[in-house]
Amino acid sequence: TLAAPAIAQQNPKISWRLTSSFPKGLDTIYGGAVDIADRVRAMTDGNFDIQVFAAAEIVPGLEAANAAGAGTVEMAHTVLYYYYGKEPAYALGAAIPFGLNARMQNAWYNAGNGQTLVNEFMATQNLYSFPAGNTGVQMGGWFRKEINTLDDLKGLKMRIGGLAGKVMERLGVVPQQIPGGDIYPALEKGTIDAAEWVGPYDDNKLGFAKVAKYYYYPGFWEGGPVVHAVINLEKWNSLPKNYQAILEAACAQANADMLAKYDARNAVALKELVAAGAVLKPYSQEILLAAYDAAIATYAELSAKSPHFKKIYDDQLAFKRDAYLWAQIGEYTFDTFMMIQQRSGKL
Amino acid sequence: TLAAPAIAQQNPKISWRLTSSFPKGLDTIYGGAVDIADRVRAMTDGNFDIQVFAAAEIVPGLEAANAAGAGTVEMAHTVLYYYYGKEPAYALGAAIPFGLNARMQNAWYNAGNGQTLVNEFMATQNLYSFPAGNTGVQMGGWFRKEINTLDDLKGLKMRIGGLAGKVMERLGVVPQQIPGGDIYPALEKGTIDAAEWVGPYDDNKLGFAKVAKYYYYPGFWEGGPVVHAVINLEKWNSLPKNYQAILEAACAQANADMLAKYDARNAVALKELVAAGAVLKPYSQEILLAAYDAAIATYAELSAKSPHFKKIYDDQLAFKRDAYLWAQIGEYTFDTFMMIQQRSGKL
Repeated sequence: TLAAPAIAQQNPKISWRLTSSFPKGLDTIYGGAVDIADRVRAMTDGNFDIQVFAAAEIVPGLEAANAAGAGTVEMAHTVLYYYYGKEPAYALGAAIPFGLNARMQNAWYNAGNGQTLVNEFMATQNLYSFPAGNTGVQMGGWFRKEINTLDDLKGLKMRIGGLAGKVMERLGVVPQQIPGGDIYPALEKGTIDAAEWVGPYDDNKLGFAKVAKYYYYPGFWEGGPVVHAVINLEKWNSLPKNYQAILEAACAQANADMLAKYDARNAVALKELVAAGAVLKPYSQEILLAAYDAAIATYAELSAKSPHFKKIYDDQLAFKRDAYLWAQIGEYTFDTFMMIQQRSGKL
Repeated sequence: TLAAPAIAQQNPKISWRLTSSFPKGLDTIYGGAVDIADRVRAMTDGNFDIQVFAAAEIVPGLEAANAAGAGTVEMAHTVLYYYYGKEPAYALGAAIPFGLNARMQNAWYNAGNGQTLVNEFMATQNLYSFPAGNTGVQMGGWFRKEINTLDDLKGLKMRIGGLAGKVMERLGVVPQQIPGGDIYPALEKGTIDAAEWVGPYDDNKLGFAKVAKYYYYPGFWEGGPVVHAVINLEKWNSLPKNYQAILEAACAQANADMLAKYDARNAVALKELVAAGAVLKPYSQEILLAAYDAAIATYAELSAKSPHFKKIYDDQLAFKRDAYLWAQIGEYTFDTFMMIQQRSGKL
């Protein structure tokens, strides 16, 4: 008998629109969505075409996930904590103060319960999601004056949003919501006393060192914030299986690549910032400890209020305990030794 | 006029064989190749089929890359430092003592010159490659007696291979090459005094705590060893472009997933090992500093001998300097604070 000729599956033509929460000027984070689209096209010979729109081109930046849930667009590239006011559980998908670092986020998503739990919640929002970027730990913001004690924080007007702002409010800070482009003049005039933005590479472009030279670290409210690809649930379910696998893979690549780019670019930008007059300062233990307690108190309140928050938080917390137990043995002692060599000029 | 129907590109049927350097028992590292094959099939509706063979099924574990270069198989899943005796530059693609940690490896490959430089060298070996796994920092091995000073290392028979063995030899250690399955009886009988294997998860399976209870850290010779997918160069070039993009994506997923799995599993295994009697000990600064100097001296020799080694080493070293400059500001202070909370029971 003759074998029947193999019938190869075809890649159907599909066009989607993706709305990003970021302006093109934040090239690393905005670029993550462009990378996803480029890779999906490459893997499908151009048949699955995702058109990327910057924030505000078709949807406001902070509405991106909502637009995907409503089906206005098929997908969005955004940070889930933008939506924590709608339901606090959103924040756990991205970053909470004193949460997981970037590597632990990946471990929780890929080898813990993160992906399952977050998408269980996302289904209630008519969404499906994948981690698709990470900035790594952010910086703790630019201050016009040194802050050493909790007293120094009292009444301080600081541009800081979302859940981080809620935690800082407990310490007496007055959180301000100000778009990126308006931060510099507000700091220059003294309308605000401090502002957090992202990290050295993105901050360097906005020239903050000229108007608020004290650059504090770490940004304890964002240990490893995840940038997500969020997809309208019906649109996700309607994709051919191979396109689902391809989109998932492209998001995983963007997830790793964005962190790699920030790591490489932040190192260079940090040197430029210091040369431009930025004064690097670690947050004092007094401030960190008080912020930590304030964060724990906030999570107890949110857990009492939202069963979605409680379920994901409890799982993430248990994972974090184990993760920091292991990290302090191998990774930390290796890195510590290498940093000593770096500081002593032997690296 | 009527539009012509879209002609969708077809996914051709292709079958490849992959030989792994690992036995099935090392399920996390061996499983990386299975994950790659599964994902490639999912993304091509089963049309690009990669059959995975464990070490020694068709090719000895330490010959995997050579078999791919020779075209015996289309690809291999292996660690490049296994081949450093053939040409020392191989080791730089995976890990060298006091090299990059896992996150920095990713940054160097994806946002530095790593991928370009390693593949420039790999082309001389008739290979193309992608990072496709990482164990994270490994442990520093099991010892029958405590070692505190350099004197304690003199004449010590230690199961440790490759470039790490060469560095330890400069400190008076007598490196031994012993397959994984033979380590336990050798330690039990005292034929050897010490052995390094991988990390808590893999080590736990072999029961070393019973015969050599001192478990040292960190494994400074493997800060973040990369496991590679290496592909016969002509076979790579002959793949359709969309299959190249798909294979690259599947390798990137395996790269992230393996690290995530080790991070999650090592944390749990570490607790089990301590419960089973393992005594955790950090290497002394005296030993670390001497090993560091021995490594630098080794790299000077290898750079003088091999232009391939020198070119890649110089680039990787410059990247490492910047990477540790940035890491000690943001990541390190965040992690340090979290570890203090972990140790004090507040996490």
